[in-house]
Parts: sequence; C-alpha cells; structure tokens
Amino acid sequence: MSVPDRGDLRVDGSRLHARIAALHEIAPISGPGGEPGNARLALTDADREGRDLVRAWMAELGLHVHVDGIGNVWGVRPGRSGRLDEPAVMTGSHIDTVGTGGRFDGNLGVLAGLEVVETLERHGVVTERPIAVAFFTNEEGARFAPDMMGSLVFVGGLALEEALDTTGIDGARVGAELARIGYAGATPCPGPSPCAFVELHVEQGPVLEAEGCTIGSVTGVQGISWQELTIVGQSNHAGTTPMRLRHDSGYVAAELAVFARRLALELGGSQVATVGTIELHPNLVNVVAASARVTIDLRNTDDGVLRTAEERLAEHARDLAAAEGVTITARRLARFEPVAFDPAMIALVERTAERLGHPVMRLPSGAGHDAQMLARVCPTAMIFTPSVGGISHNPAELTAPADLEAGADVLLQVLLELAGTDGGGGGERR
Amino acid sequence: MSVPDRGDLRVDGSRLHARIAALHEIAPISGPGGEPGNARLALTDADREGRDLVRAWMAELGLHVHVDGIGNVWGVRPGRSGRLDEPAVMTGSHIDTVGTGGRFDGNLGVLAGLEVVETLERHGVVTERPIAVAFFTNEEGARFAPDMMGSLVFVGGLALEEALDTTGIDGARVGAELARIGYAGATPCPGPSPCAFVELHVEQGPVLEAEGCTIGSVTGVQGISWQELTIVGQSNHAGTTPMRLRHDSGYVAAELAVFARRLALELGGSQVATVGTIELHPNLVNVVAASARVTIDLRNTDDGVLRTAEERLAEHARDLAAAEGVTITARRLARFEPVAFDPAMIALVERTAERLGHPVMRLPSGAGHDAQMLARVCPTAMIFTPSVGGISHNPAELTAPADLEAGADVLLQVLLELAGTDGGGGGERR
Repeated sequence: MSVPDRGDLRVDGSRLHARIAALHEIAPISGPGGEPGNARLALTDADREGRDLVRAWMAELGLHVHVDGIGNVWGVRPGRSGRLDEPAVMTGSHIDTVGTGGRFDGNLGVLAGLEVVETLERHGVVTERPIAVAFFTNEEGARFAPDMMGSLVFVGGLALEEALDTTGIDGARVGAELARIGYAGATPCPGPSPCAFVELHVEQGPVLEAEGCTIGSVTGVQGISWQELTIVGQSNHAGTTPMRLRHDSGYVAAELAVFARRLALELGGSQVATVGTIELHPNLVNVVAASARVTIDLRNTDDGVLRTAEERLAEHARDLAAAEGVTITARRLARFEPVAFDPAMIALVERTAERLGHPVMRLPSGAGHDAQMLARVCPTAMIFTPSVGGISHNPAELTAPADLEAGADVLLQVLLELAGTDGGGGGERR
Repeated sequence: MSVPDRGDLRVDGSRLHARIAALHEIAPISGPGGEPGNARLALTDADREGRDLVRAWMAELGLHVHVDGIGNVWGVRPGRSGRLDEPAVMTGSHIDTVGTGGRFDGNLGVLAGLEVVETLERHGVVTERPIAVAFFTNEEGARFAPDMMGSLVFVGGLALEEALDTTGIDGARVGAELARIGYAGATPCPGPSPCAFVELHVEQGPVLEAEGCTIGSVTGVQGISWQELTIVGQSNHAGTTPMRLRHDSGYVAAELAVFARRLALELGGSQVATVGTIELHPNLVNVVAASARVTIDLRNTDDGVLRTAEERLAEHARDLAAAEGVTITARRLARFEPVAFDPAMIALVERTAERLGHPVMRLPSGAGHDAQMLARVCPTAMIFTPSVGGISHNPAELTAPADLEAGADVLLQVLLELAGTDGGGGGERR
C-alpha cells in the first residue's frame, strides 16, 4: 500500500456523506418544501436508534467504546503504546436534534470524527496519543434543560444525580429515560480529561457564507441565559370583563416577548433574544388566560451586557406584573458565561485551514456547543463550516458537500497534529 | 292543596340548588383555591353525562323531549289544549362549559327552567300556551367554532350540514362526536319557532354587583368577531441568527396580542379585545418559531366601531408581516352583529323584577348568548343575575344563592305572563 505523507492525508467524502445520509434515515422529517430534516429529541426511541447506529460504527472501526452514567458515548483508538488509560485527543459533538432539526447540526462532528478514524485505519497511521470520538447526551436541551447536559456532566460541571433527576417538557425524567433506552452506562462521571478537544460543527449562522470563507476558527462561545417565566393572572370571560379589570396572563406573556425583541435591538452588538415558547392556559378563544409560560433565551459574547439584559428583563417583568395585577415567577433553566477558546488551538485550526487552501476566518459562536464545556478541562478548538443562508434548527439546514469534506479534512489534520505521528504513517504499535 | 294566586308563585330554592349541585358533580374541576368549577367541553363524554342527567330530569317532569340534528334538546310541557304542535314559550340556555368553567354559566338557565316547570306541576298550574325548556349544543365554542352553534342552527342561521362538518381544536368533527355520544337526534333543523324566548343567565361581568342590583334586564348583546391568524415565518437557531435576519412567528404573534390590547384601549367605550390562544411551533426555548397561531376575540355594542377594530387589526397585521418577512393568513371563526332585544320583552322583565321587589337595571350583555339567536325568530328577553367580582369562565364564578332564586322567580313570573293562565291555577286541560 502506498502511504501518503501524513500532511497529504484526506478523508473520503463519499464515506462521510453516506454516514450522514444513513443517520438522517432515523426519525426523518420534511420541511414545508420537502427539505430533509430530523426530529431526534434526546433520550427518545429515535435517539436510541441513532445511538445504536453510531455505536455500531464505532465497534466496526475497532474503537473501545465507553458509555458513562449520563449516556455520553465515546470510542477510543489507542495510540502507539496501545494503552487505553492515556489521555486522548478527543473530537465529537452530539446526535440529538431539536424537534425541527437539520441533518448536520451535531451529527457532522461525530461522523467526521469516525471518518477521521477510518482514514487513519485505511492508511495504517499510528498516532502517539489515543484519539477518541464522542457524542454527548442532550446537547440541544430541547427536551431537558440545561442544554449541553452530557458534556457538562462529563467535565464535572453538573452532578450526575442532579442531571438524572431532571424533568423534561413531557414530564419524563432523564434517569428513567436513560435506563429505558439502555444508555445508563457504567463508566463514572466526570469522565477522563482529554489532552485536547476539537469539535467540527456547522456554523448555524450566516457569517462564513457572507464572508466567502469555507472554514471558521471559532474564538469562543457566547454566554447563554435561559429563563422560564410563569405568569399567573385571572381567567375570565372575554366578552364581559372590561379591559381595565383584567389580569390577563396572555397579554403579559406577549408583552414580555415584544420587550425581549426591543431589548436585543437596543443593546445591539452580539445581543440576541428569543421567546421560542409561549403557552397559555386554558388557551381558548373566549377566555382571558389564567396563566402563561414563556421561555426567554438571551445570548451575548460580553457577560456584562448579558447581565444587563437579564436585569432589564427582570425589572420590566416586575413593572408589568404590578401594572396588570399578575404574579410572574422566574426559573433559571440554564446560564453559561461566555467562553474563550485556547489561543494556540485557535491558531492551529486557522493555520491548518490555510495550509489546505481553504479560505478561513476567526469568529465567535452564537450557539452553545459541547466544546465550551470541554474547554473547562483541556485546550479546546472548534472548526465551523458554512451554513447556506445561515439556516439551522430547521430541515432546510444545509452545508455544501465540498464544505463538509473541507471541514473533515481540517479536523483530520488538526487531530494528527495534536495526537502526533512519526510523519510517515505505517508505524507499528509498541 | 292550597293554590296561591299565580302572581304569588315562587320557585323552591332548595330544589334549584340541588340540581345545580348535581350537575356540578359531572366533570368537576378545582380552581387554585379549591373553587368548584366544571370542564364539560361540548360533545365530550362529560357533556354526554350532563345531557343524560338533564334529559332524565325532563322525562321525570313529564316533558315531551325532542333532540334535533345538531343535538339541541328541549322538553315541552303542553298548554291547556294538550296539543304539542302549538308554538311554545321557550326558556333555556346551555350546559356545555369552557375548559375552566364555573357551575352557573348556562346551567342556571336550563335548571331554573326545569324548576319553573316543577313549580307549575306541584301547584297544578295549567298555562294557555306550552312551555318548553331547552339546552342548546356548543354555546361556548371552546371546542368547536362558532360559539352558539346549536341555537344558530335551531333558528336557521347555519345549515345543519355545515355545522356537522365543523372540525374542533382537537381534530374531532361535530357530526362524528354527536353520533358517538348519542345525540344526533331525529327532530329536523331549523326547529319550530317559539312564540317567545326568555333566557336566565349569570351576568359574567361586574356591573350588577357594582350597581347593587339583583336583576338585570338585558337590552341586547354585543357584536362578536372571532378570527384565527396563522403566521408562517422561518425556524432558526436562537443563538446564531442576528436579530435583523429573523422571520420570527413567535414575535409576530406576541406583537399582535399587544396591539389588540392597545386597540381596545384606544377605541374605548364597550370595545374589548382578547387574545386567548397563542401557539408556537416548534415551541422550543432555543428555536425561533417557524409558525404561530393566535385567536383574536373583538366585541362591541356598536357594529361600526367593531368593523373599525377589525380593519385596524388587519392593517397592522399586513404592516407587521411585511416588516418581519412572514405571512399572516386570517380565518374568520365567528361574526355576529350586535343584537337588540324586543322592547316589550325588556320592559316585561324589568316590571316583573320590580313587582317582586328586586332592584333591577337595564344593561347590554358583553357575552354572546343563545338568546341572541332566538331573537331572530321571536320576541326575546334575558334576565341577568349578579356575578360576584364579575368573575366567569373560571371555577371561582359565583352567584349568591338568594340571587339565583330571585332570577328563577323572575323567570317563573315572566313565563307565566307570556304563556297565559286563568290567574287562579289548578285549571283542567281541555
């Protein structure tokens, strides 16, 4: 077999695309124009099917598979010593999706990691350090809050017991669901710290496309604040209750959502605000709502401004509650400070993309990612590939096939650099 | 048996309260403070149980019971001739409730009608004209739109076939549900026009209590406009999508609800506006909503102002859709013009209350009622009793026992006046 220099190694795009297509076959959904998306909410039967498929691929590739107490799964390819207890260079992401998810969000990073391993196997490349490919539980947070739950538990940022005790939007509990789908693993939490972590992910935003770049080297992740506000007013008849006598939870919920939009525009910069959930009770046409529930998602790269946004929202809620005669109680669903990635790792991604001839830029991430949790315990980087139209969390989410391959190639070369080789491939394990 | 003069006849409050309590036992719910309410949405199993109970009472009282094609039920007590084909003096209301309903809304009018009949029976009073007691299908409209469906079909304002083909909020169809619960009756629609109609109902508003009146003689009913607005935008990631690039259906839904409130305050007078329903899809914390559904309930005693409210709402929706890059489609769920009741009937209720010593006032109804449909085919009146705190569509809905009895006494005397007697009771049927 002709062995290329390790710097010339490239992934096999057709294998990568085939795995993405196969995982898409599990719990597929269609967008309004027939776009191919997925609905694999964390710890559902659909998630189990996805997990089983990816775990089987890990086993086929000869990886040593671990499942920990929160259901994180990772497969280890040993380094030259053959020992499994050495710190690994880890890559990975997640395979759960939101209810109206795309095919690439999360899945790309996991399946590109497998493709890197298969490329190394096919070319007989032995690395100095082990390489691990992981998928973390409940990254999306669409069913259970907080998001990035698995990676947070993996790095010791959330106690396993507390995570297992989490109740989801459908009333299910994490611990029970993990047991039900067979992914309450034996490997203890927190997990072993990697010597480095690299996550490949689609951008989910419009910046790379607008700037004509194929690769983004991610400088860090926005801070995230998720709150749930519960409003309790008074149910009443929509026809007979004068406007001045109302205690209308639905109106207050709507006013909070409009305020969140105004707040984001006023604060400007990277500030975003989203009210993605509004639920009224009893939710009937002719009844003033007795109670309402809204969630508010605030993000900023600057933690000071993010705190200002939280304070202004709380102040507005207090004023509104007093004016309308309702009570508003806030519950924190998630709060993550902004994260800055390791400067040497950011530079390594950037340099590698340049060497491979891919236009590259540095940018922050607007979305939360498992990488921000791993950054607590090891040098961490992220590689972004462009999202067509910036669309994500939507079946229309799309990254061009060539861009997917470019991202996987950069991942391969960055992992080789971090894991170390003799440079010529074909080495024997000691 | 000592027979009082017909003007001295009074209902038996204990029997009335007992029937109200018994009907409350079917599908009871509790408010946050343990208040006793009901959830008997139209054509559910709970509605069937309520219907069976009231129909059994009608039969026990010797009434000739009719069930028509839309499930309206009425029992006829023949007049002096004993013939069933003579136009009757009709009273009645409805026994369906909203999802968080009280014990009195609708139920009072039906059960007071039965109590009037029992009082006449016990005292052997024969009337010149028949007296009929009715309950009409789906007055609330909480499950199927439009509201007041049964009475609208009864008077020929809506074709039976169209009503049967209505799909509810849970996807069920009126025709199938009627058949399922055994209330697709054989009596043809429209039904026989009564010679007069009188409905006793709780006010569901705060006016009588505030004015210290026990009885309201209702002058008419506000016009009602119900619309459903469906907003289609673009689902996207809450963290990575800059505010200026959003097509956020959730924001637009909220903005419409806030506008409706502002519109009602600006138009003033009797104008009310309620957004009781807001639903987002996919309704997740970190996803910009792809689509949303809101209902808007507008009411006014002045049809011109009501039309202005509808036009301004439509205009605002157009502007908002253009600004946010979403589509908004409106569907009319119900539209009823304001109704003025018969002046002689209004005066009869007022005079009767005065004769019985109950403080009385004239007032319009803010809520829609079956009586407004019957007003299309015969002289019609409504009798209101006070609602404590103006609360309705809520388990805390309450009318004092003495006020319930006062309302039933006025109903009894008004029906006697309309149906005619020999004045001494105890007459023989010819």
